[in-house]
Amino acid sequence: MLITSVSNDKIKELVKLKDKKYRDLNDLFFIEGKDLCDEAYKNGLLREIYILDGYDNIYDGIPVCYVSDEVMKKISDMASFSPYYGVCSKMTSHEMGNRVIVLDDIQDPGNLGTIIRSAVAFGFDTIVLGLECVDLYNPKVIRSTKGMIFNVNIMTEHLTSFLKDVDDYVIYGTDVKDGVDIKSENIPTKVIFIIGNEGRGISNEVREFCQKYIYIGMRPECESLNAGVSASIIMYEVFNK
Amino acid sequence: MLITSVSNDKIKELVKLKDKKYRDLNDLFFIEGKDLCDEAYKNGLLREIYILDGYDNIYDGIPVCYVSDEVMKKISDMASFSPYYGVCSKMTSHEMGNRVIVLDDIQDPGNLGTIIRSAVAFGFDTIVLGLECVDLYNPKVIRSTKGMIFNVNIMTEHLTSFLKDVDDYVIYGTDVKDGVDIKSENIPTKVIFIIGNEGRGISNEVREFCQKYIYIGMRPECESLNAGVSASIIMYEVFNK
Repeated sequence: MLITSVSNDKIKELVKLKDKKYRDLNDLFFIEGKDLCDEAYKNGLLREIYILDGYDNIYDGIPVCYVSDEVMKKISDMASFSPYYGVCSKMTSHEMGNRVIVLDDIQDPGNLGTIIRSAVAFGFDTIVLGLECVDLYNPKVIRSTKGMIFNVNIMTEHLTSFLKDVDDYVIYGTDVKDGVDIKSENIPTKVIFIIGNEGRGISNEVREFCQKYIYIGMRPECESLNAGVSASIIMYEVFNK
Repeated sequence: MLITSVSNDKIKELVKLKDKKYRDLNDLFFIEGKDLCDEAYKNGLLREIYILDGYDNIYDGIPVCYVSDEVMKKISDMASFSPYYGVCSKMTSHEMGNRVIVLDDIQDPGNLGTIIRSAVAFGFDTIVLGLECVDLYNPKVIRSTKGMIFNVNIMTEHLTSFLKDVDDYVIYGTDVKDGVDIKSENIPTKVIFIIGNEGRGISNEVREFCQKYIYIGMRPECESLNAGVSASIIMYEVFNK
């Protein structure tokens, strides 16, 4: 099937996935670019694929629509669109692993995407998002993960209820100056690191669950680091200890 | 003076600073928010200040305009505007320090801002931007630096000409797998690290100047890190050795 009209009903439905409301309603999200579509396909999450007319279909067994330039431009979220656009099922989360990052309401999509990418790079198996975090399926989040979103266990939780029920894990808060230097800390096997919101840091309610604090050694001239950078340096240190 | 009309000539001129062309023509740029205005003032770069009617002027000796809500909304680059909007002279660069980061055409404004912030945190004194880097005075770059843009020496250079003339520095390239682990490398006093573009990495012409390569230890499942994260981890390791 080749779709050439932007007012085609299927295309109208598809464009709605740019809104969180529709993504939630249908348990679907979209991805752009061959690399992301490849990763979704490998992980069995690709449900439909839209391909620019003239490009090859490389996804066996997935329903495909070919679309014109004009239609791809309409459905794409980017200025320079890719020839591959996929619709995916939302991921399901599984049991929490040993190395966990909790995000106490990260707001910036680029930061969330970067943290997911770094978690895969540095062997963190689970990311827990607070209820006020930016939407995991926001297109900018997906893009910033560079396909790594499919390679890590992601849970969304009411953080204080979640932390109350956690057993056997050492829970670390991150702070600019308080606590122990991450370089000199012996990290236990089962560990949770909490990263605070870009503006306010870790909320007071969540702070109550922190058993220890760690900091990243830096010059006092700089008050703090970008949240994506802080999370990445902590995971890097734990992986490379 | 209180300006209440968005068609005021001064306001019309001011809004033009959102375009790189006008920033370059006038050697000026704009900043938003009290924190950034404070940093610019401390560093003697604040030239004019626009304050939302009803807020205090805390910048002695700087020409001030009070503006209405509607005018602030017009000049602001953000959805939720701040009561302080400053016009600054562009910074001048000075002689290169011992610890230098060279950016071979970073494109994402958030990445450039983050690298500037991390450079101040980890004691890198000079950042050299290639000619094709995103504009340093792009409002998103400025915001992401969190005021740190005023605390580091930033130069813009034709990179191959610049690297050809460098003496006494060890020039490191960064690569995903080649070279030496940053953790085990003894870093010399005068050092340059080159960070490549988000898509293509370090260009072939610039690669010719790399004397050594370093990598960041990570799992093979992840092909690379975000450029802002890579640069930050390298600077973090050098600072905390």
